[in-house]
Amino acid sequence: MMRKIPVLEIFGPTIQGEGMVIGQKTMFVRTAGCDYSCSWCDSKFTWDGSEKESIQMMEPQEIVDKLWEMGGGRFKHVTISGGNPGLLSQLDGLVDLLHENQVKVALETQGSRWQEWFAKIDDLTISPKPPSSGMTTNFETLDFIIRSLKEKQQGDFSLKVVIFGKEDLQYAVNLHKRYTDVALFLQVGNDDLETEEQEKLVPYLLEKYERLVDLVMDHEVLNDVRVLPQLHTYLWGNKRGV
Amino acid sequence: MMRKIPVLEIFGPTIQGEGMVIGQKTMFVRTAGCDYSCSWCDSKFTWDGSEKESIQMMEPQEIVDKLWEMGGGRFKHVTISGGNPGLLSQLDGLVDLLHENQVKVALETQGSRWQEWFAKIDDLTISPKPPSSGMTTNFETLDFIIRSLKEKQQGDFSLKVVIFGKEDLQYAVNLHKRYTDVALFLQVGNDDLETEEQEKLVPYLLEKYERLVDLVMDHEVLNDVRVLPQLHTYLWGNKRGV
Repeated sequence: MMRKIPVLEIFGPTIQGEGMVIGQKTMFVRTAGCDYSCSWCDSKFTWDGSEKESIQMMEPQEIVDKLWEMGGGRFKHVTISGGNPGLLSQLDGLVDLLHENQVKVALETQGSRWQEWFAKIDDLTISPKPPSSGMTTNFETLDFIIRSLKEKQQGDFSLKVVIFGKEDLQYAVNLHKRYTDVALFLQVGNDDLETEEQEKLVPYLLEKYERLVDLVMDHEVLNDVRVLPQLHTYLWGNKRGV
Repeated sequence: MMRKIPVLEIFGPTIQGEGMVIGQKTMFVRTAGCDYSCSWCDSKFTWDGSEKESIQMMEPQEIVDKLWEMGGGRFKHVTISGGNPGLLSQLDGLVDLLHENQVKVALETQGSRWQEWFAKIDDLTISPKPPSSGMTTNFETLDFIIRSLKEKQQGDFSLKVVIFGKEDLQYAVNLHKRYTDVALFLQVGNDDLETEEQEKLVPYLLEKYERLVDLVMDHEVLNDVRVLPQLHTYLWGNKRGV
């Protein structure tokens, strides 16, 4: 019997606001559960128990039905996010089912756990967490994941690091030196997850973005990198489900 | 004897603010001269004669020297923009020289003219101009360019359309139907090229971005597309050389 998938949210079509396919029209499937508890996590509800009652245990076909119900014929791309979907071996069936329906699949995971189905993902973002998160990267595991992806993965993959300060930037530098030939995306951290004042949040985040751009432009190691904001926060602030 | 290259600006390192490698750390080389005269062109100085005196005729090696002088060891990527650099067969030598120096090369051109050196570009953006520009696309030429790129190009290429209104969106729909398997980027048009009031420009452009996102999300043909703003205008408004 197939194990069901713990789902917290299904929404879209909307744009992917960050990372390697920034701007991509996509649907989102957000799974529950995480092995991390990052201090600045913008989706704490996926692991802090606050929305335990909302978790739905779904079969791959049920998820696909729900996606079609919500997105109609208006999508060709689905992003699996979390929490950490990398904890769930049973996502294998969902990835296959989406591919059978000519839908591309993106995944967001921190790279703390390997799954064989990672090799089938079209747009795979590995986002190890820098010191400001309070988490510690297991580089043995990450080495294994990067090596496995280079050997087996058929789509594209990249590394993404969220930067809140200079220590985080140094972490990104070390990561770039360790995996020189892997595309690296640096992303501005959002440390104001509460505000509903969109007209203040945007200039605040833009200032942080400019500061990060300046630091990266001056850096001799961070050359072949991409520096990006989270576009969804510019459009919709901290609102969920968009 | 090698023909020299008409150069209007060399600047960076900065980020590429738009399109397929949005966020990429890069240097810019802006060539003078264009076969188009788009109504909303944000670089009219490259073709309207207003900066004719500033055009420098440079050899590839002189451009590379200037790039190193300005960017030091802080870049691995150069974007050739215009004007329309696609008019200049002599850019071939610059592309080769940059590659010999382990630097990747991006190009921005409207796809009105083919050059054999397009095949060597790492990140090639073809941006045909929609009706609001006042220009007419020669689809015979564009077909030839897309076919040639599919056959010969070693890097990545994509189509990009700037959208100012519904007619432009319909143009993008037709383009997407004609070249279904080519990555398509839709970009918010900036119709306020004069303002220096950054704090008003950003909300104005964000509203336009949200409207474009909404239109694309509702559209049944525009599914596997990416919708992006111009990040440099969010950061630096209409300022040049950043």
